[in-house]
Amino acid sequence: MEYRRFNDTYVVRMDRGEEIMGTLTDLCEQEGIRLASVAAIGAVDRAVVGLYDVGEKVYHKKEFNEPMEIASLLGTVTEKDGKPYLHLHATLCDANMQTHGGHVNELRISATCEMVLRLLPGEVGRRPDDVTGLNVFDFIKE
Amino acid sequence: MEYRRFNDTYVVRMDRGEEIMGTLTDLCEQEGIRLASVAAIGAVDRAVVGLYDVGEKVYHKKEFNEPMEIASLLGTVTEKDGKPYLHLHATLCDANMQTHGGHVNELRISATCEMVLRLLPGEVGRRPDDVTGLNVFDFIKE
Amino acid sequence: MEYRRFNDTYVVRMDRGEEIMGTLTDLCEQEGIRLASVAAIGAVDRAVVGLYDVGEKVYHKKEFNEPMEIASLLGTVTEKDGKPYLHLHATLCDANMQTHGGHVNELRISATCEMVLRLLPGEVGRRPDDVTGLNVFDFIKE
Repeated sequence: MEYRRFNDTYVVRMDRGEEIMGTLTDLCEQEGIRLASVAAIGAVDRAVVGLYDVGEKVYHKKEFNEPMEIASLLGTVTEKDGKPYLHLHATLCDANMQTHGGHVNELRISATCEMVLRLLPGEVGRRPDDVTGLNVFDFIKE
Repeated sequence: MEYRRFNDTYVVRMDRGEEIMGTLTDLCEQEGIRLASVAAIGAVDRAVVGLYDVGEKVYHKKEFNEPMEIASLLGTVTEKDGKPYLHLHATLCDANMQTHGGHVNELRISATCEMVLRLLPGEVGRRPDDVTGLNVFDFIKE
Repeated sequence: MEYRRFNDTYVVRMDRGEEIMGTLTDLCEQEGIRLASVAAIGAVDRAVVGLYDVGEKVYHKKEFNEPMEIASLLGTVTEKDGKPYLHLHATLCDANMQTHGGHVNELRISATCEMVLRLLPGEVGRRPDDVTGLNVFDFIKE
């Protein structure tokens, strides 16, 4: 990983072999990033993505071990228990240009990942939501 | 829906049962948002998306009633006839992690929707385009 | 193409028949744009997208000649050899609302393309990477 900050925005290159969730967590810890929006493209050779079925309370998960482009990687960095909390969704294309996607558990870079991370001046936490069983945005009361 | 504004940017949580287009319209009206870029992820259990075939002048539409992740939701808020005009496209993943997408007509949230809405300091309208039959960006003449 | 600049952000409309990579390159040259993040939606009737298989050193490419929505178009403008260097990935939906995607070589607009381009105050170049054979972000040493 290598990056530069330009005002409120980090431009980040992650490299072959790096796992995006872990590497982004490292970046957030190094730089003290507490709230940010994330957009990225890139290429991976391993991906684990999922879908949470709220009705059935079942988490569907799929593992890919093949070259794929990251057509989009979008989401946010917020904070939970004093640590960076990443929530990213991805669309991935296989060698037939067909796409797959979902909630990101793991993305291992094959070629490069080019990320733009924009800091927001504030804090948003996470709280468990009883209805869905997910950790949703928790806005600090003013 | 709950949200906070951080300088030029709204961080928004929409909740289970809310429909994204209507809820975002409400937000824009409440806050007087006239021009903004939108990026979001989330999960839905109902979606109506479409594709307009300019050559055939046919609008293809598809309805999904199943749990899907919003892998990406991108677009803009502009203004038409004094009201917020939303134009959003989505990529959605089903329980097999296969993706579908298109022009958004309707998205009903199953779990949560996490949106980042960035205000732009200006105005962009909409005008009908004779060639395509669509409402395209209309830039106010200076 | 028509566009307006609002502070650090261009809102751009590209029109039927225009090819997005060429048109965006023109915009960057006209406006002297050296570093920017790009997000867009729209509709095309021709697309060439690809995937580079780093392991096999093979570039897979697919051509589409049919009406498709751009569900997402994401990436950056950087600089190489004094010229704008675009790196964009797209997700495209066909008339069955199924999606395809990849690294963008060519996108010809059928209806409209609505782009938000955010300038970043700095410079990022490109350098060839021996391991992958790609041109990756090159951060100017400070």
